[in-house]
Amino acid sequence: MTLFETDLPTMATSIGRSTADDIWVQGYNLADELMGEVDFGSVFYLLITGRLPSAGEARIFNAVLVALADHGLTPTALAARLTYTGAPDSIQGAVAAGVLGAGSVFLGVFEDAGRVLTAAAPDAATSDEELDRLAAGIVENHRSRGARIPGLGHPFHKNGDPRTARLLAMARELDVLGPHTRLMLRVQAQATSPSGKPLPLNAGGACGALLCDLGIDTAVLRGVAVVSRAAGVVGHLAEEARAPMGRTLWYLAEREASYEPRR
Amino acid sequence: MTLFETDLPTMATSIGRSTADDIWVQGYNLADELMGEVDFGSVFYLLITGRLPSAGEARIFNAVLVALADHGLTPTALAARLTYTGAPDSIQGAVAAGVLGAGSVFLGVFEDAGRVLTAAAPDAATSDEELDRLAAGIVENHRSRGARIPGLGHPFHKNGDPRTARLLAMARELDVLGPHTRLMLRVQAQATSPSGKPLPLNAGGACGALLCDLGIDTAVLRGVAVVSRAAGVVGHLAEEARAPMGRTLWYLAEREASYEPRR
Amino acid sequence: MTLFETDLPTMATSIGRSTADDIWVQGYNLADELMGEVDFGSVFYLLITGRLPSAGEARIFNAVLVALADHGLTPTALAARLTYTGAPDSIQGAVAAGVLGAGSVFLGVFEDAGRVLTAAAPDAATSDEELDRLAAGIVENHRSRGARIPGLGHPFHKNGDPRTARLLAMARELDVLGPHTRLMLRVQAQATSPSGKPLPLNAGGACGALLCDLGIDTAVLRGVAVVSRAAGVVGHLAEEARAPMGRTLWYLAEREASYEPRR
Amino acid sequence: MTLFETDLPTMATSIGRSTADDIWVQGYNLADELMGEVDFGSVFYLLITGRLPSAGEARIFNAVLVALADHGLTPTALAARLTYTGAPDSIQGAVAAGVLGAGSVFLGVFEDAGRVLTAAAPDAATSDEELDRLAAGIVENHRSRGARIPGLGHPFHKNGDPRTARLLAMARELDVLGPHTRLMLRVQAQATSPSGKPLPLNAGGACGALLCDLGIDTAVLRGVAVVSRAAGVVGHLAEEARAPMGRTLWYLAEREASYEPRR
Repeated sequence: MTLFETDLPTMATSIGRSTADDIWVQGYNLADELMGEVDFGSVFYLLITGRLPSAGEARIFNAVLVALADHGLTPTALAARLTYTGAPDSIQGAVAAGVLGAGSVFLGVFEDAGRVLTAAAPDAATSDEELDRLAAGIVENHRSRGARIPGLGHPFHKNGDPRTARLLAMARELDVLGPHTRLMLRVQAQATSPSGKPLPLNAGGACGALLCDLGIDTAVLRGVAVVSRAAGVVGHLAEEARAPMGRTLWYLAEREASYEPRR
Repeated sequence: MTLFETDLPTMATSIGRSTADDIWVQGYNLADELMGEVDFGSVFYLLITGRLPSAGEARIFNAVLVALADHGLTPTALAARLTYTGAPDSIQGAVAAGVLGAGSVFLGVFEDAGRVLTAAAPDAATSDEELDRLAAGIVENHRSRGARIPGLGHPFHKNGDPRTARLLAMARELDVLGPHTRLMLRVQAQATSPSGKPLPLNAGGACGALLCDLGIDTAVLRGVAVVSRAAGVVGHLAEEARAPMGRTLWYLAEREASYEPRR
Repeated sequence: MTLFETDLPTMATSIGRSTADDIWVQGYNLADELMGEVDFGSVFYLLITGRLPSAGEARIFNAVLVALADHGLTPTALAARLTYTGAPDSIQGAVAAGVLGAGSVFLGVFEDAGRVLTAAAPDAATSDEELDRLAAGIVENHRSRGARIPGLGHPFHKNGDPRTARLLAMARELDVLGPHTRLMLRVQAQATSPSGKPLPLNAGGACGALLCDLGIDTAVLRGVAVVSRAAGVVGHLAEEARAPMGRTLWYLAEREASYEPRR
Repeated sequence: MTLFETDLPTMATSIGRSTADDIWVQGYNLADELMGEVDFGSVFYLLITGRLPSAGEARIFNAVLVALADHGLTPTALAARLTYTGAPDSIQGAVAAGVLGAGSVFLGVFEDAGRVLTAAAPDAATSDEELDRLAAGIVENHRSRGARIPGLGHPFHKNGDPRTARLLAMARELDVLGPHTRLMLRVQAQATSPSGKPLPLNAGGACGALLCDLGIDTAVLRGVAVVSRAAGVVGHLAEEARAPMGRTLWYLAEREASYEPRR
């Protein structure tokens, strides 16, 4: 007898199913109701949340995806290009290598900010005073632990992340700036760096807050960023196929690094 | 002296760059010119090709992304869910595991069809007679090698893949049905199964041909499918976080598989 | 001007270097001093720690690698097989998919146990009384937070994990049972389940403690398990290539799971 | 009705199974018969082939694993380090990124050489004359197609790969140099570069041939290299955790690459 001779829980999915004549995605007929009817970003939203976004939600969700897709020769782009150098016939592997770097340091801020905000559980009925109080609690909690508040500050964009202003302006205009983002803005207003300077709201913090307002589960917040970044990675691989830099990166590393065995 | 003391080729990229105040993507100001102005599918197209799509190109490119995003509990979805079971705090790893199965057997058809079509090098000026001749060459080449023509036939959708009809109707309506797709249709019309039956054009073949018409490099055709499928995988992971089936799949496999050591 | 116009730190590595005639690994001539002279497990130890293990260290390190390599159709094995189903010509992708599940839930215990033990910083000079005191602190710390102590308890091997007894017996015999393992054993002796029952030391806890005694950095403890598990995954893929079960798993999932769209 | 309502093939595995008291690997009791009794390399061989290696087979298999583990700051090592920079808490992801580059360009030669040799199907009874004839066929087949013979030539080790000589000497001494390696040596003796120069047998070619002689299925030849390289990658990650170079690589790439948008 093995260890697994027990009754198993039933399994259910709402995501998709194929029959001989049709493909269903979240209860929609893929060919008739989704293809050509809604954009890819909206179908991605449908896949995650189980419902199609409103027009405003679709625009802000697309803007978040656009914001995170690429910003140059980042570690994720370089890892993907170097992987492609060794395995050009398995482009899925190079994309996978690229997104594997979308972890706690870079795109994790996204999820971390989302977790801080959803833990405070603001909703549409939360008053401004209550949001101020929740924000003060978050700021104090991090200050007492000597921890950085996820979503604030940026190593390069000292004057403010250009994506943040655009996202917030759009969200206001589209009337999708909800309680999580309102709370995030209050946190930003109250927080300061260890040396007492104000900290700008970075794109990760803004995106995390806006996605919470859009009803995205914090468990997959980083997954949204991963799909967005995958598009950037494929862009880099298209360029790498045409004008490779992988070997130059390799030789550069070998040339610049000294060999210092400890033996 | 090491092996790498040589002059290195210069490196250049058109994809992206950050300055203190701005982020540039393919020469566009990300915050001002792309976010909120174009949908995510169009920015993905820009990242790959270096130019924004026309309205018709954007619609068909989005429809291709929507077509491939998901169709249920496929091996890629299951691999992602099982990976999430062991590593729920690294969702990027579960997405990567999911897309790693997007290889030669499933989404490879995409790229294979594209390679067959681009090797024939049809263009806008190619006449119908010439397309018929090129199609006959492709069919004969595969028949003589006993090889299947990529993009034709489907194990489940015997009466035709529902996505194919929709894509072709859209492409005609939008006037983006170009020489690669015209050639693919002629190949389909001429080819038959080993038993002499007609073979439907499957979604992979239609998508591959349409993407070639859109100017996507065959080197990254599969990459387009990978990004699309990544969205489906994140949908599955959102569900897995809420209503897990990973352990049931595991116990089911242990229960159903007999243990037969060769010793 | 871009953001990166600053002086860069120098880079150095002790791991490896190639010249026209030789390959060096941690200061050893690979062909002359390592190949045929030491087993693969010992070279793995050298790669991580910068020195070759003693005979006793090599035996226990190999035993740990053997202990973790495989135990059947686990989620990691299934994810690898399902990935192989879609991408059989990219076996590196199937191995990667397999190891991506070696995360916090399964092999993470390894690293978690190591972090708890190294945080207490026991060394060869720590007395038994001091170890008892450190163990009591660890037990109390977890009890007060309602947290499980990593390395204790096992869902299946209720009477004790068979690998643990073997590893401890070997470590005693080889005289490599050091302060981290001695501390772990005291933690096990003092801890109980919420219902007051003793908790066996599982293989993850034993391996984590022994590897700390071997001088493995906690940052890569899980990496040791990943390499071990990669060997098991390749074993599964060799079988999958010969006697596939990937499609059966797929169809089984589709058959057993109900489709319940939320729309 | 869905598409999967058919009888499913049975599933069987010889790899492993857990019961409440024991863990079985290829029919061996893991704790009693493998741990401490055989080295990790031998258990890896057991996992793939279903049997334990002889003493000579174990030594040469370990030597192959040692040969391929690392040779410095290769693209695989760099991709792993850059992934670790972004996701240090998911070391399995960094290892996966590293092995994903073990594809057709670098470690694929391994598998390619193995496929060429097994296609010729030499066995212990094949005479020297027949081996010469088979070798001539292989050389002629590649020459006529203008294709390179996998396993011959090396971009850096022009005078011969130092690992090859060592492996061949060991194989002769241990009497495990079988028909595939004898054939590979004859291919090497007969082949020349396009300019007429002799081509050395590289480590990939030697390892591929020796592994075929050891009875490793060509489907997983590259998988052997992947496990070996995973050990090297973990070595690099241990160093990266201690003395990081990931950010320097990133800034170096941003600094050295010019930004040349096509817009």
